[in-house]
Amino acid sequence: MIRFILSSHGDFAKEALNSAAMIVGKVPENFSYISVADNGKGIESFKEEAEEIAEKFQNEKIILLTDLFGGSPFMTILSVFRNVDYRLISGFNLPMIIEAFMKCNTEMSLDEMADHLIETGKNEGIRKVDRLN
Amino acid sequence: MIRFILSSHGDFAKEALNSAAMIVGKVPENFSYISVADNGKGIESFKEEAEEIAEKFQNEKIILLTDLFGGSPFMTILSVFRNVDYRLISGFNLPMIIEAFMKCNTEMSLDEMADHLIETGKNEGIRKVDRLN
Repeated sequence: MIRFILSSHGDFAKEALNSAAMIVGKVPENFSYISVADNGKGIESFKEEAEEIAEKFQNEKIILLTDLFGGSPFMTILSVFRNVDYRLISGFNLPMIIEAFMKCNTEMSLDEMADHLIETGKNEGIRKVDRLN
Repeated sequence: MIRFILSSHGDFAKEALNSAAMIVGKVPENFSYISVADNGKGIESFKEEAEEIAEKFQNEKIILLTDLFGGSPFMTILSVFRNVDYRLISGFNLPMIIEAFMKCNTEMSLDEMADHLIETGKNEGIRKVDRLN
């Protein structure tokens, strides 16, 4: 089973899980999040929490989902999880998280899961709707 | 000036603005959000709030950003804003919101802005990073 760890500046990752749970029912047990609090010490606590999680799940396959490419959560996650078998996706959106909820117990390799979530997030997930006439 | 209105199940839209503000500095004055609260009456309050906003800004150009394509916030927004000059983008992510913060005072048409934000959200915004060696 793949484990999913979201991270973000502030509570964006936490609320992605909460919003997806409003739609799908509940947050699956193999999902968790780490937030950088909106204060000066945020990134230190974030790093400590990430280190605990990386150690705890060091023998699992992990999909890391970050709010952005670059920025301190992203850079910290890359550093802390360097010895863990992961794929990272930056720029998550809600369609991607809901798809991860639905497929999280499917037998897929890390690359298959990451590619599937990216495809869902980009192509089904982001759409333009013109004003209805 | 284009006005930007985010909406979501729960606080995902609110926290997108807060997280972007942690990175860029503050939420520009032409951005706001509407949330469906996590209780039975959520969508009624959401609709009332959307109606007030649609009336207040009925003569402005608006980019509507929703968490998902489909679902009750999306359907309600489409209905309530039907007489307003908008483009809607579903499936927002943080790179898209940050780009909107940076470009929100640029002279662009609604289509130019929507297409630019979608391009940013999809192609710069969502990336796969393999484990570093």
